[in-house]
Amino acid sequence: MDERAALALLSDELAAAGDDAAVVDGLVVTTDMLHDRTDFPAGTTRYTAGWRAVGASLSDVAAMGAPATAAVAAYAAPTFDRDELLAFVRGASDVCERVDTEYVGGDLDGHDEFTVSTTAIGRTDDPVPRSGARPGDVVCVTGTLGRSAAALRLFDRGRTDRANDLFRFEPRIAAGQGLAPHATAMMDSSDGLARSLHQLAEASDCGFAIESDRVPIDDAVREVADDGEALELATTFGEDFELVATLPEEALSAVRDATDVPLAAIGSVREAGDGVTMDGEALADRGYTHG
Amino acid sequence: MDERAALALLSDELAAAGDDAAVVDGLVVTTDMLHDRTDFPAGTTRYTAGWRAVGASLSDVAAMGAPATAAVAAYAAPTFDRDELLAFVRGASDVCERVDTEYVGGDLDGHDEFTVSTTAIGRTDDPVPRSGARPGDVVCVTGTLGRSAAALRLFDRGRTDRANDLFRFEPRIAAGQGLAPHATAMMDSSDGLARSLHQLAEASDCGFAIESDRVPIDDAVREVADDGEALELATTFGEDFELVATLPEEALSAVRDATDVPLAAIGSVREAGDGVTMDGEALADRGYTHG
Repeated sequence: MDERAALALLSDELAAAGDDAAVVDGLVVTTDMLHDRTDFPAGTTRYTAGWRAVGASLSDVAAMGAPATAAVAAYAAPTFDRDELLAFVRGASDVCERVDTEYVGGDLDGHDEFTVSTTAIGRTDDPVPRSGARPGDVVCVTGTLGRSAAALRLFDRGRTDRANDLFRFEPRIAAGQGLAPHATAMMDSSDGLARSLHQLAEASDCGFAIESDRVPIDDAVREVADDGEALELATTFGEDFELVATLPEEALSAVRDATDVPLAAIGSVREAGDGVTMDGEALADRGYTHG
Repeated sequence: MDERAALALLSDELAAAGDDAAVVDGLVVTTDMLHDRTDFPAGTTRYTAGWRAVGASLSDVAAMGAPATAAVAAYAAPTFDRDELLAFVRGASDVCERVDTEYVGGDLDGHDEFTVSTTAIGRTDDPVPRSGARPGDVVCVTGTLGRSAAALRLFDRGRTDRANDLFRFEPRIAAGQGLAPHATAMMDSSDGLARSLHQLAEASDCGFAIESDRVPIDDAVREVADDGEALELATTFGEDFELVATLPEEALSAVRDATDVPLAAIGSVREAGDGVTMDGEALADRGYTHG
């Protein structure tokens, strides 16, 4: 059973599972595990690892439209180096501070491979699900896409400082709250835009029509991409932590006023039978399958 | 740097760390990572692993005197076997149900070694710290000690059914709430009774005088122990999840009425200069160092 099949099995088993985060009595909870081999390329600093790991969980809280209350991390490594550990904690603390959340520590574990497990907690009485998109809604993306794709190429090329900068991101906690009052469906883009749209389409029983020239491709992608490859990297690579949301078109300007980041309207929600398309062609359900 | 030194470093770095769980605005949060090599002996079922991993985090919430609200787990394994995954989830769900908490799922991750990271969340406006024990208080332990020590011997001997039974435990959420109104200090016994007493002594700046014949040794320990070894196993092996609490002696009968498990009064709190003793002899700070 691959990870997607396993997640589907769990979703059937657990009533609260199946969205970016679980919600119980207004408490929003999400947990993620990341590890060296698949998530932290050579050159990733422990500061960046702490920031990114905790940020990934905060992004799931953002995707529910909730403010974050606290985050914790379990840090597992073969040895505990003082400087590495402090750098990790500072990265974790700094990303929390960026979104007015408290990093409250966690657990340490001896482990052959550097592995981090993070949990973030938020609170909302009105979470935004993946399931409410309606034909006619506009579909929006916060910020820009492709930063992580660009970062990986830069890690490969030894440009680790710039790659680390790109690998850290601002969790869209504030934007999530700005979107929440109007959003009909929302999730984060960690599996890539294409896969996220397919997941929203499945949860909401709808289709999407995306216009490629409105997809906000990060400038860093154009720096590293081969000719004609930028759009592909920005839409399918994933591991970015932007929000993908649907909302009534008439709410767009109010939402833009209420959010602190650019919000690109990239297309519209269609009937399920219309499928997920980009420039009128079927957009494949391809993206990052988390390892 | 070993794990204890690393934890001390983190405790200096993070205001909310250093107790069984962090408390932020009444929200109690704790996370733990367990893995195959050090935490799940051969023969441990995935049902038991799910129960035990989630239970360990619930025990930390119990040690703060709080009810638990929700728990999550990240499950990492080389492959996702349907039956193993479902068994894990059922173990996790069942231990939550036992303490009126909701298991809300988590994350999956491909990993060379079976690894579980769990987080439990509770809520209390009046957490019980490790630091309030006062000379003259009585020191108590819930339930019995040594179940995990006995379980490990039984796993070694191939008696896996009995060992799995002993390896699952009831998190002392209800007892923790019964103790909380009167307890001056509390923690769980996961590092073993001896080490827990030393940690309470350090946090509260006190000593302890323990009477060995009042230590509640689990019957299973006597089944597996060599002559004269039972007390040692029960006091230093650890990996049990009972509560160790101090409280004024006059509160003892009220607390016993309010808790659902036996509460053994095993000694008294002394001045710091008296040290930590058992039957008048120094009790070494030995126990389980979590790997």
